[in-house]
Amino acid sequence: MSGNRGVSYEGPGKVEVRVTDYPDYELKDGPGVNPANVGRKLPHAAILKSVATNICGSDQHMVRGRTTAPTGLILGHEITGEVVDTGPDVEYVKNGDLVSVPFNISCGRCRNCKERKTGICENVNPDRPGSAYGYVDMGGWVGGQAEYVLVPYADWNLLKFPDKDQAMEKMLDLAMLSDIFPTGFHGCVSAGVGPGSTVYIAGAGPVGLAAASSAFLLGAAVVIVGDLNKDRLEQARSFGCETVNVAEGEPKDQIEQILGEPEVDCAVDAVGFEARGHGKEAEKEQPATVLNTVMDVTRAGGALGIPGLYVTGDPGAADEAAKQGSLSIQIGLGWAKSLSFVTGQCPVMRYNRQLMQAILHDRVQIAKAVNATPISLDDAPRGYHEFDEGAARKYVIDPHGMLASR
Amino acid sequence: MSGNRGVSYEGPGKVEVRVTDYPDYELKDGPGVNPANVGRKLPHAAILKSVATNICGSDQHMVRGRTTAPTGLILGHEITGEVVDTGPDVEYVKNGDLVSVPFNISCGRCRNCKERKTGICENVNPDRPGSAYGYVDMGGWVGGQAEYVLVPYADWNLLKFPDKDQAMEKMLDLAMLSDIFPTGFHGCVSAGVGPGSTVYIAGAGPVGLAAASSAFLLGAAVVIVGDLNKDRLEQARSFGCETVNVAEGEPKDQIEQILGEPEVDCAVDAVGFEARGHGKEAEKEQPATVLNTVMDVTRAGGALGIPGLYVTGDPGAADEAAKQGSLSIQIGLGWAKSLSFVTGQCPVMRYNRQLMQAILHDRVQIAKAVNATPISLDDAPRGYHEFDEGAARKYVIDPHGMLASR
Amino acid sequence: MSGNRGVSYEGPGKVEVRVTDYPDYELKDGPGVNPANVGRKLPHAAILKSVATNICGSDQHMVRGRTTAPTGLILGHEITGEVVDTGPDVEYVKNGDLVSVPFNISCGRCRNCKERKTGICENVNPDRPGSAYGYVDMGGWVGGQAEYVLVPYADWNLLKFPDKDQAMEKMLDLAMLSDIFPTGFHGCVSAGVGPGSTVYIAGAGPVGLAAASSAFLLGAAVVIVGDLNKDRLEQARSFGCETVNVAEGEPKDQIEQILGEPEVDCAVDAVGFEARGHGKEAEKEQPATVLNTVMDVTRAGGALGIPGLYVTGDPGAADEAAKQGSLSIQIGLGWAKSLSFVTGQCPVMRYNRQLMQAILHDRVQIAKAVNATPISLDDAPRGYHEFDEGAARKYVIDPHGMLASR
Amino acid sequence: MSGNRGVSYEGPGKVEVRVTDYPDYELKDGPGVNPANVGRKLPHAAILKSVATNICGSDQHMVRGRTTAPTGLILGHEITGEVVDTGPDVEYVKNGDLVSVPFNISCGRCRNCKERKTGICENVNPDRPGSAYGYVDMGGWVGGQAEYVLVPYADWNLLKFPDKDQAMEKMLDLAMLSDIFPTGFHGCVSAGVGPGSTVYIAGAGPVGLAAASSAFLLGAAVVIVGDLNKDRLEQARSFGCETVNVAEGEPKDQIEQILGEPEVDCAVDAVGFEARGHGKEAEKEQPATVLNTVMDVTRAGGALGIPGLYVTGDPGAADEAAKQGSLSIQIGLGWAKSLSFVTGQCPVMRYNRQLMQAILHDRVQIAKAVNATPISLDDAPRGYHEFDEGAARKYVIDPHGMLASR
Repeated sequence: MSGNRGVSYEGPGKVEVRVTDYPDYELKDGPGVNPANVGRKLPHAAILKSVATNICGSDQHMVRGRTTAPTGLILGHEITGEVVDTGPDVEYVKNGDLVSVPFNISCGRCRNCKERKTGICENVNPDRPGSAYGYVDMGGWVGGQAEYVLVPYADWNLLKFPDKDQAMEKMLDLAMLSDIFPTGFHGCVSAGVGPGSTVYIAGAGPVGLAAASSAFLLGAAVVIVGDLNKDRLEQARSFGCETVNVAEGEPKDQIEQILGEPEVDCAVDAVGFEARGHGKEAEKEQPATVLNTVMDVTRAGGALGIPGLYVTGDPGAADEAAKQGSLSIQIGLGWAKSLSFVTGQCPVMRYNRQLMQAILHDRVQIAKAVNATPISLDDAPRGYHEFDEGAARKYVIDPHGMLASR
Repeated sequence: MSGNRGVSYEGPGKVEVRVTDYPDYELKDGPGVNPANVGRKLPHAAILKSVATNICGSDQHMVRGRTTAPTGLILGHEITGEVVDTGPDVEYVKNGDLVSVPFNISCGRCRNCKERKTGICENVNPDRPGSAYGYVDMGGWVGGQAEYVLVPYADWNLLKFPDKDQAMEKMLDLAMLSDIFPTGFHGCVSAGVGPGSTVYIAGAGPVGLAAASSAFLLGAAVVIVGDLNKDRLEQARSFGCETVNVAEGEPKDQIEQILGEPEVDCAVDAVGFEARGHGKEAEKEQPATVLNTVMDVTRAGGALGIPGLYVTGDPGAADEAAKQGSLSIQIGLGWAKSLSFVTGQCPVMRYNRQLMQAILHDRVQIAKAVNATPISLDDAPRGYHEFDEGAARKYVIDPHGMLASR
Repeated sequence: MSGNRGVSYEGPGKVEVRVTDYPDYELKDGPGVNPANVGRKLPHAAILKSVATNICGSDQHMVRGRTTAPTGLILGHEITGEVVDTGPDVEYVKNGDLVSVPFNISCGRCRNCKERKTGICENVNPDRPGSAYGYVDMGGWVGGQAEYVLVPYADWNLLKFPDKDQAMEKMLDLAMLSDIFPTGFHGCVSAGVGPGSTVYIAGAGPVGLAAASSAFLLGAAVVIVGDLNKDRLEQARSFGCETVNVAEGEPKDQIEQILGEPEVDCAVDAVGFEARGHGKEAEKEQPATVLNTVMDVTRAGGALGIPGLYVTGDPGAADEAAKQGSLSIQIGLGWAKSLSFVTGQCPVMRYNRQLMQAILHDRVQIAKAVNATPISLDDAPRGYHEFDEGAARKYVIDPHGMLASR
Repeated sequence: MSGNRGVSYEGPGKVEVRVTDYPDYELKDGPGVNPANVGRKLPHAAILKSVATNICGSDQHMVRGRTTAPTGLILGHEITGEVVDTGPDVEYVKNGDLVSVPFNISCGRCRNCKERKTGICENVNPDRPGSAYGYVDMGGWVGGQAEYVLVPYADWNLLKFPDKDQAMEKMLDLAMLSDIFPTGFHGCVSAGVGPGSTVYIAGAGPVGLAAASSAFLLGAAVVIVGDLNKDRLEQARSFGCETVNVAEGEPKDQIEQILGEPEVDCAVDAVGFEARGHGKEAEKEQPATVLNTVMDVTRAGGALGIPGLYVTGDPGAADEAAKQGSLSIQIGLGWAKSLSFVTGQCPVMRYNRQLMQAILHDRVQIAKAVNATPISLDDAPRGYHEFDEGAARKYVIDPHGMLASR
C-alpha cells in the first residue's frame, strides 16, 4: 500500500521507470498538474492495481517532443485494473472488481456527461472540455503506466467485467477497451460503416487496426487499410483486410484495383496530423494528406470518421499555419461531394460495454488484430522505442506480471 | 406554346432578358450543355409556366465572373410554376397543377435518390453527382428565370400544392421552397438545432435569413445572425434575431454580450467561400473566415451546418491553394472541440413537403423574413444589380404578372 | 431545520396536510418504503425548500384508490425548489441554487442512466427499474408536496436555473419542467412530431396540453386535441389547438373535417388506461380506447408516443385481463399501417435543459397553456378535489408563499 | 415470348402449376385484381424470366385458407430474375440484367416512397398503402412463382447484381434479398440490435433464421432462437445460435440458463398471429403469445422488432376480437419497461443493396442459414406441403432449371 513505480517522460525520446507516489484521494501538485486542480479532493475515486496498461500512439506525440509535456510526467491513459480501495463516496464499485477505465476522464455530473459526451467533460480539466490520464494539458491527472493508479468518479467511469476468471483469460483483448477499440469503433460509427459497407481506413497503427476490426464487427463488406509500413499492412492482411501501400502511389488508384471503382462508402482517418505524403512524398510530413485523401476516396454523400488526432498547436510543424493547427484542406471537394466530418476524442463510455460483450462472446479478436504484446513495466522504455520504430505491435504493460504467467 | 423569354448571362456583371427556345422533351445543345446530355430524351418531363422564379446568391457567383459559365446561359434554379404540359411517361402530375421545383435535379432511380440524397443524383450530370437548372458545370439543364421551363422526372421532382387559390395567396412564401428555405433549414438540421438551442448564423443574405427563420421554426431559444451589411442585419432583427456586425470585431465577443457566454450550441455557415474578414479585415476576401469562425463560436460537441458554397475551383481566388478549393482551416481547434461538419447542397425533397405545410398553416413567415420582393421579368437585370449591391431583399421574378396583380 | 409539513394520502378520495419528518441523509422506514431501501445512506443528496410542487394526474390514480398505495404516503413528484443543504458527496450543487427536480429518480451510475434512460434507473427501486418521489411501488422515496424534500444523487439529478430572479419570475412555467412539459414533449418526439407535422393529441389534461404546446414548439403545422371535457378543450383552443370532442363521435371523422383528410402524421396518447369510450360509450371506462384510436387516426408509417400511463395491475378494472394490465389492442391494424409505438416514463433529464432554455427565452408559454394555478399547501386537498372533478387547471402548490407574493 | 406457367392457389390446402398469361404492359382483370387496377397501363415495367422464386411463410396463410384469397391466384412475391423486356419508359434497367425484386411493390413517386417507406406505397394498391405480388388484397399484381413475371416501375424497384456470373454462383443467397433477409434484418434493426447485443428471436422459420443471421451480421454477442419445431431449432444451432424450445416451458427461464440473466437487450417477433402457446399450451393457437413473450424477455428500455405478420381480419380465429385483429396484449408490462415496438412490412429497398454487398463479399451465408433448397416449378406443390409440415427448409423454385445445373 505504500510504494508505486511508473513510466515517466524524461525529455524528447526518453522515458524511464521510476518510483512515484502511491495514489491518494487528493490531486497533489506535480509535473503538469493544472494549478486549479491542485488540492482537489477525490472522495469519489477508486485506487486500482494496474493489470494491463497500454502504450498509445498519442503518447508518442509527447515522447517525440512534439508537445509541451513537462518532464517527470507519469504517462499512460489505457488502463485496466483491479480495484484495491475506494473513496467514501463510492457506492457501487467494490474492492476486487476487475474493471476497464475509459481514457477520457469524466465527472458524470455536467451537461456534456449527461449527454453522453464524456470526451468533453466540463469539470475535470480547468483549461477546456476533455481530459485524459497522464497527458499534457489535460488537467494533470496522473498516468496509469504504473503499478497503481487513481480513477476519479469511479462509479461513473469504471466498467466492471462480469466474471474475473473469464476476464483474466481475455485480458489482452479487454485491455483494448480503455481506448483503441472504442476509438476505432467510433471512427467507423461516425463514418456510417454498417453491413455491406466498403470502408477505407487510413493508418495501420493500433487505432487503424482497431478501426478495421470494428468495421468487420459492424458488418462491412470490404475493409481496405492504407499505410506505408509494410509490417503493419501485413498485420492488417492477417485478419482479412485488403491493403494499400500509400508509398506506392495514390490510394484512389489502388482502391479502384481492389473494388472495381475508385471510391468507398465510408472512410476513417486513423492517422491525424503526423501524416506523411503519398507516393514520392512519402518521406515528408504533410499534415493534411490523410484528411484530403479520405475526402478524395469517399463517395459523394459519405461520411468521414476522424479519430486521428489534430492539435491546436504543433511547435514542430513545418509552417506557421500548421504550428497554430491550421491545415490546407480541400474543403471545396468535400462540399461538392456533400461529405460529413466527425472529429474528436471518442467518448469511450458510449461503446465500451457493448464491445466488452463482443469480446466476451468471441465475436471479435481485437488483441490478435492489433498484435497485442505484453511486456513488463521495466521493459516499457523498450516498448516505446520499438513502437516508435514502427513495430506492428500494441504493447501492453503488465506491471504485476499477471499476464505473463497466463 | 411557341415563344419563350429568359434571363441570360452575357458576361461578367451582365445579364439580359432575351428570346429563347420553348421547352422540348429533349435536351438540345446550347450554352453549357454537357455533350453527353445533348439529345437526351425526356418523356418523363413536364413543362411549367413559371409563376415565381427567384434570383439566388449562387447565381451571383456566375454573374460576377467567378466561374467558367458560358455566355448565353439561361439562369435560374428557384422555380415555382403551373404545369402546362407533360411527357408521355408522366403519371401523377397533371396539367394545371401548381408546383414547387427542387433546385437539385434528380432522377428518382439511382442509389443516391433512393437514399434521399437528391443533391447528388448520379444520373443527371455526366460530370459528377449533383445538378441544378441554369448553372455552370451542372449538366446543361436550362434555367427557369424564363416564362417557361422544363422539369425532368416530373413525378419524382415536383411538389404539388394542395389548393391552388390558397397557394397563390401565399406564393411569395411558397416560392422559397425551391431552394433557400430548405437550404437554410438543412443547415439548421445539420447543425443540430432544436427546441432551446442557441444558434449562430453566419450571413444575413437570403439563405442566412432563411436559416434564421428555420431555427425559430425548430424551436431555437436564441438566434444570432452575423453579417457586415447593416440593412441585412436590420432585416434579421425585424423577426426577432439578435445580430452581430462582424465589421465591428470578432463574433465571439459580441455573442458573449448577448448570451452571457461566448459560445452557441449550433452554428450555420450561410456564406461560403466569398467570405470577408472580420473587424479590420472586413474589406478583404478571406475565404476560410466563416468556417473558422463557426468553429470558434460553437461549444464543444456541437455541429456545424455548412450550406454556404465552397467550390473546387475559384480562378479569381487570392492564392494558389484557394484557386484549387483548398483553404487554411483550423482543424486542430475543431478536433479539440469534437465538432462535426455537414457540407453540401441541401437535398430539397427531404424537407419541402413539411416546410410547405408550415407555410400553409401560418407557422412561419418566410417571405417576410427574407423580404421577398416581386419584380417583372424585364426588371431581372435590375434585380441582379441591386442584390449584388447588398439590398436586403430576395428578388422574385414574376414572368407572367401573376404576383403583381395580387 | 426542524419541522416539515406535507400532503398525505389518507385513503381513497382523501388527502390531508400533516406534519412529517424533516428530510435526513438516510432513507428511513415509513409508509411504502421498500424494506431493501430502509436505512439507505444518502450522502449524495440535497435538501430542498420546495418553491413549487405540482399535483399530477398520476397522483390521482393513487388518490382514487386504484392502487395499493399505503395511507400516510407523502405525495408529490413534481418539484422545484431551492437547495438549503447538501450531503458530503455533493460537489457542484450549492446552497441557494434554484433547481428543477426530474420526477424520475436516477443514480447516474448504472447502465441505463449512462445510456440516458433515467426513467428506468436500476439502482433506486429494489422492485424494478424506474422510480419516482411519493409514489406507490417506486422504492419509497418521500414525496415533495411538502415544505422540504430530499433529492438523492443531487449533482446528477438537479437542473440549476442560471439566474434566480429571472427564474422566480417564470416560476409557474419552470415548475412544469419536473414532469409534464418533458413528458408531453417526449410524447411528441417519440411520435416523430416536427416542422409541418399534423398531430393528434388524445387528452386535454395537463400532459395533453403540455404535449400540444410541445408540438407547436417543435414546429407542428396543425395540433388537434381530443377530450370529452369541454373546459379542457376550451383551454386547448386558447393557444391555437384545433379540438375534437370525443363524446360527440369518432375522432377520425372530426379530424377529416379539420384537415380535409382523416389521418394525422403523428399521434400522442396522453390519457392512458383510465380512458373512456367515444360517442355513446363516453361514460364507460374502456382502457384500450385511446390506444386503438391513435392507431386509427395515424397515417401509415407514422409513430405513436404513449406517455399516458398503462399499469401492470389494476385491481379496479372491469375484466380479469385488464386487472393484469392486458388490453384488447387492434395490433393487426397497427401492423398493416407499419406503425411504431414508444411507451414508458419520460426520461426527464434528456429534455429539461433545452426546455428550460425555451421557457427562459420566451419561446413557449407552458404555464398559460396548462393554466397553472398556484395554491397554498393547506389548499392542496381542494386542489386534488377540483382537479379530479375535471378543472382545466394545473395546480401548483406553493408551500412557502413564494409564488403568491409575485 | 408466348407461354407462361405458374403456381396457382386452388383452394384451402391446394396449389397447382398451371398455364397462365405471359406478362403484358397492362394489368388485366383476373383473380383478385382490384377493379380500380384493371386496365392500368404499365409502360414503366420490365418483364423478368424468373431465376429463383421462393415459397414464403406468408403464402401459407393463404394456402391454409386463413384468408379470402380467390382461387386461380398466381402466387409468389420473392422473385429474382433476368430482364427479358422493358417498357418504353424504362431508362436504366436493360435486357439481360440479373436483378432482385423487392416483394413490396412501390411506385417511387408518392410521399411514402420518397420517404423510403416503400412497404406502404400509396399508388399501387387501391385499397390501402402497401402491396405485394401474388397476394390477397394487395391490388392484384400477378405473382412470380412462374416462368415469367412483370415488375412495374422497374427503374425504381429493381436491384441489379453487378456481375452476372458471380451472381449466378451465389444465387441461392441472393434469392433471399427479395424478402426474408431484409425482413429479418429489418426486425433486428428495429429492435436496436448492434455489436454486443444479446438478442431473442421468436421463431425459427425462414424469417426467424434470417433475423438470427442478420443479428450476427450486425455484431450481436448472443443470438437465442425460440421455436417448438426441433428440426428448425437444430438448423438455428447449425450457425451458432443458442436455442430455446418453447414447448418445454417459458423462454425467460431458458434464457436465464443461457445468459445468466432472464432478459435480452433486443427481441424480434418472427412468428406473428399464427403463434402457439408455450409449455403445456404449445398445441393451442394463442395469437398474442409471442408478442407478450418478447415483452417479457426484453430488458427495460429495449425495443421490439415485429416483422411477424398480424392481420386486420382472421376469419379462422378462436374469438371475436381476434377475428377483427384485436389481441389481448400486456401493454401494462410493456409500458412499465419503457419498451418500443416497430411493426409492419419491411421496406426492402432500404436494405437490399447493402445486404447484397454482404453476400457478394462472403460476409454472410444466408442460404445456408435458412437451408435454401432448390426445387423445380413442377415440384412447387410438394414444396408448399413440406414447408407447411414444418420442414426446416426454405424452398426456392427454379422454373428454368438454372440453379439445378449449377
